[in-house]
Amino acid sequence: MATVSLTTDFGNLNGFVGTMKGVIWKIAPEVNIADISHEIPAQDIRTGSIALWRASVYFPAGSVHVAVIDPGVGTARRAIAAQLGDQYYVMPDNGLITPMLEDAEAAGLEVRIIHLNKPEYWLPQVYTTFHGRDIFAPVGAHLAAGVPLEQLGTLIDDPVRLPLPKPVRTDEGVEGSIVVIDVFGNCSTNVRVSEVPDLKNAIVRIAGQVIHGILPSYGHAKVGDLVAVTDSEGFIEVAVVNGSAAKSYGIKLDEAVRIGFND
Amino acid sequence: MATVSLTTDFGNLNGFVGTMKGVIWKIAPEVNIADISHEIPAQDIRTGSIALWRASVYFPAGSVHVAVIDPGVGTARRAIAAQLGDQYYVMPDNGLITPMLEDAEAAGLEVRIIHLNKPEYWLPQVYTTFHGRDIFAPVGAHLAAGVPLEQLGTLIDDPVRLPLPKPVRTDEGVEGSIVVIDVFGNCSTNVRVSEVPDLKNAIVRIAGQVIHGILPSYGHAKVGDLVAVTDSEGFIEVAVVNGSAAKSYGIKLDEAVRIGFND
Amino acid sequence: MATVSLTTDFGNLNGFVGTMKGVIWKIAPEVNIADISHEIPAQDIRTGSIALWRASVYFPAGSVHVAVIDPGVGTARRAIAAQLGDQYYVMPDNGLITPMLEDAEAAGLEVRIIHLNKPEYWLPQVYTTFHGRDIFAPVGAHLAAGVPLEQLGTLIDDPVRLPLPKPVRTDEGVEGSIVVIDVFGNCSTNVRVSEVPDLKNAIVRIAGQVIHGILPSYGHAKVGDLVAVTDSEGFIEVAVVNGSAAKSYGIKLDEAVRIGFND
Repeated sequence: MATVSLTTDFGNLNGFVGTMKGVIWKIAPEVNIADISHEIPAQDIRTGSIALWRASVYFPAGSVHVAVIDPGVGTARRAIAAQLGDQYYVMPDNGLITPMLEDAEAAGLEVRIIHLNKPEYWLPQVYTTFHGRDIFAPVGAHLAAGVPLEQLGTLIDDPVRLPLPKPVRTDEGVEGSIVVIDVFGNCSTNVRVSEVPDLKNAIVRIAGQVIHGILPSYGHAKVGDLVAVTDSEGFIEVAVVNGSAAKSYGIKLDEAVRIGFND
Repeated sequence: MATVSLTTDFGNLNGFVGTMKGVIWKIAPEVNIADISHEIPAQDIRTGSIALWRASVYFPAGSVHVAVIDPGVGTARRAIAAQLGDQYYVMPDNGLITPMLEDAEAAGLEVRIIHLNKPEYWLPQVYTTFHGRDIFAPVGAHLAAGVPLEQLGTLIDDPVRLPLPKPVRTDEGVEGSIVVIDVFGNCSTNVRVSEVPDLKNAIVRIAGQVIHGILPSYGHAKVGDLVAVTDSEGFIEVAVVNGSAAKSYGIKLDEAVRIGFND
Repeated sequence: MATVSLTTDFGNLNGFVGTMKGVIWKIAPEVNIADISHEIPAQDIRTGSIALWRASVYFPAGSVHVAVIDPGVGTARRAIAAQLGDQYYVMPDNGLITPMLEDAEAAGLEVRIIHLNKPEYWLPQVYTTFHGRDIFAPVGAHLAAGVPLEQLGTLIDDPVRLPLPKPVRTDEGVEGSIVVIDVFGNCSTNVRVSEVPDLKNAIVRIAGQVIHGILPSYGHAKVGDLVAVTDSEGFIEVAVVNGSAAKSYGIKLDEAVRIGFND
């Protein structure tokens, strides 16, 4: 029983996601379907790609991740499917694939990307405004049901890539930025904890604040304290204990964060 | 493995929907359950019926659609189940069935509607404030598990119908109204694109604005433009490219839209 | 096919819940997964416990309820799993178990509670900030897949209990408080309808208002009326017909409610 995941910016108001599930179960009634998020901000490809990247590594081998954040729907932008190691992805070719692809390349995993150009695996009628239902959902269902990737289209080697912000080594340590803000207002950076030689003596500077030391978790400080902790993927996160760092300090996506190693 | 869909105005805060899933899987552990929407505005029967109508045609044959927007819960209003072609519906008899029923009748599909009056298919204890859990979920589960429709109650031929707004032909073209506003602020009308003889030269008038031509999709105009496009069901939709037509032009449900064919 | 339910304060924005489903289906691909709520207010253990308590009794025998409202994540607070009658629970030991445990004890059901201290049933790498993914989801999946409860840890008899507010008998009748406010603004009390000898002649006092009689359902009064009804679990609920009692009368959690029997 394969698992399909869904990540979109469709919200849960209008039934778009439920429609995609109807399409998938019509083709592949045995699959499990997991919602990753449907509250990605409208047209925010980067936020969607990071949510999917953080979730998809935890899925069973052979899972098919269908992601539709698709401001170019109905234009000439390609639709793609990809195998990255033991996970599959189906999405518009607009950069959504980037963090998963970079990780797969860095780890030397098998990478195959296909331009989806075989309409026999789509719904019979394709509307230009809802490829999630008419192309991506049925292709994901066929993949999950066992159709080989190559049968769905033509191999390509030039998928669109997002310019994801990378941390930079400095004389004092490393400079990164906030790439995820979660529902609690916790702010995760793109700096891995493993890059910091001495967590206890690190200095984290963000939004005019200075934080001394990186803690194992929220519970090691007092309620209301601004702390730096290891987030759930091994990156440095800035948080307020039982509060919202984003709200209390006005932290936004792309906010600069400087980690000093030696002070 | 049958599929059950759920459409309610219950929101996702209190666990009402999860409770219904527990009830369904207790009776029919093999079924798939798809959420269509639980964010239908409270007691808004028409919005719920349209969300379900747009989604349910994409579901596998034999699917059971349980819908609970039910301001009359606990009063004398009937509970019904219906077969419309190859889809089943379970809901209060308050008009929710209307658009699916009208389509089934227009297409000459099999139509059977049952007044649910056999408590042996309900939970043993029925509370007057939560028929979704105590009547509709168990009846839907029994249907999905193979209980014949007629066994659940008595045939009726007078279900309550909503007065859905219909487009009207005029000398200049057709006059309709906005019937769906989605999470992006795109505003769909009740006028089918197929009623318009020449899409390129059509004139769409709404909220004091004039739009020249009906485009295939959003990507065929500039970001921020107000456009008319074909929506995902083949109706004319008014949208702002990567923006919200509802917010930018104050468009609301029932807003009049005039499409001129000849200008 | 066992059923797993999920109750958290994670929201649906960041993919945390979808990640937990990936973890569960990787271990137990055959289980059904029902979301109870992911919109529990952040760190609000009592609201989460009541949502789960109201839902979980409707689930199939053998269901596994994973609940993660966990302000102490990463500290010394224990992780627990419990069998209460025919239902299983997996959660932090912070009081979340209380209402289910009190009911099981009152009903004389089998009660076994385990301190989860066998890391072989967790993910190989446990991050201190996301035990929902790294401990609770995999333990729940192993339970649902048939691993015996005792194998997951060590029996305990001192789980943390919340001080849940209880109704008090008075000369005039009973005094309770609001313990649930639902998405419609309906306000449920902790007073069972079965404690009231004469529903028609009961007097309900709340927020400076006086309500005469407890009705079977909303539809027995006029739109806009403030009414007392029997809620979906058999408790007294205060509601505005097709409106919000919480908004119209400023009713909040813990608001006092006095029910007079004799007036």
